[in-house]
Amino acid sequence: MDWTVFLLFLGACCAAAATGSMFPPGQWYRALSKPSWTPPDWLFPVAWTTLYLASAYAASRVAVLDGNAHAMGFWAMQIALNALWTPVFFGLERIRAGMVVLACLWLSVLGSMLSFFAMDAIAGWLMAPYLLWVTVAGALNLAVWRMNPDAVSDSA
Amino acid sequence: MDWTVFLLFLGACCAAAATGSMFPPGQWYRALSKPSWTPPDWLFPVAWTTLYLASAYAASRVAVLDGNAHAMGFWAMQIALNALWTPVFFGLERIRAGMVVLACLWLSVLGSMLSFFAMDAIAGWLMAPYLLWVTVAGALNLAVWRMNPDAVSDSA
Repeated sequence: MDWTVFLLFLGACCAAAATGSMFPPGQWYRALSKPSWTPPDWLFPVAWTTLYLASAYAASRVAVLDGNAHAMGFWAMQIALNALWTPVFFGLERIRAGMVVLACLWLSVLGSMLSFFAMDAIAGWLMAPYLLWVTVAGALNLAVWRMNPDAVSDSA
Repeated sequence: MDWTVFLLFLGACCAAAATGSMFPPGQWYRALSKPSWTPPDWLFPVAWTTLYLASAYAASRVAVLDGNAHAMGFWAMQIALNALWTPVFFGLERIRAGMVVLACLWLSVLGSMLSFFAMDAIAGWLMAPYLLWVTVAGALNLAVWRMNPDAVSDSA
């Protein structure tokens, strides 16, 4: 394992993770109607910490292999979209725009996972929980959208 | 030129660029004291569009080369930090935290440029205007911090 490479990708994850502490779920989010299967609040930071570590390690495995262009492009795209979602949803309180970002994030994580699988099976599997979690987050964002029509006042 | 690879990195830039339109400079920013050398408002979107295109193209040149692990790690880190700065500065109006993000961004762009230079001179040069612009942005953020002590009320 190349620690320098791992720490570079982990640094990218830290930038995305910073949005979680700087744009926390506030009164607006707590007041929204949410589905019964909404994960408990404590699970979100635990899940994200695990997923960031796993995805950074997966990226560091693929980064040292030749022919990683698509894999590295997809990974860069997903971390930028990951950093974008929290400020849009919790900062701007824009549920529909958050849904668009999450849909793009889901596709970029899927692209990362598939391109990782093509190069290194372990790296591919390490991205699978991330895709699952973004699927849950997307279903939650969609449910919040449908259950709170009055909260969807944004223009995009 | 591999267009698919270029479009993946450009997609990452689009995610970061979206913060510019979703967290525009508002009344708060206009009311701040700014140094005489502050670039005019119209220059910011022109500069960023150019820099995103150049950095995505530079990344696509390096992504297809072998031994690009550090270069790809630095590039992923800078695009995540790039997406983080605008919501922190214009969204949360946190001048000091914005300064910390910009300092990290500057280092990651420097790391990208140097690691690109080591692999492909054209890719390295394509990152140079970006480093220059982040230097100007950092100097502006610092000047705004020093010229508006009353606006620095954030906790970090």
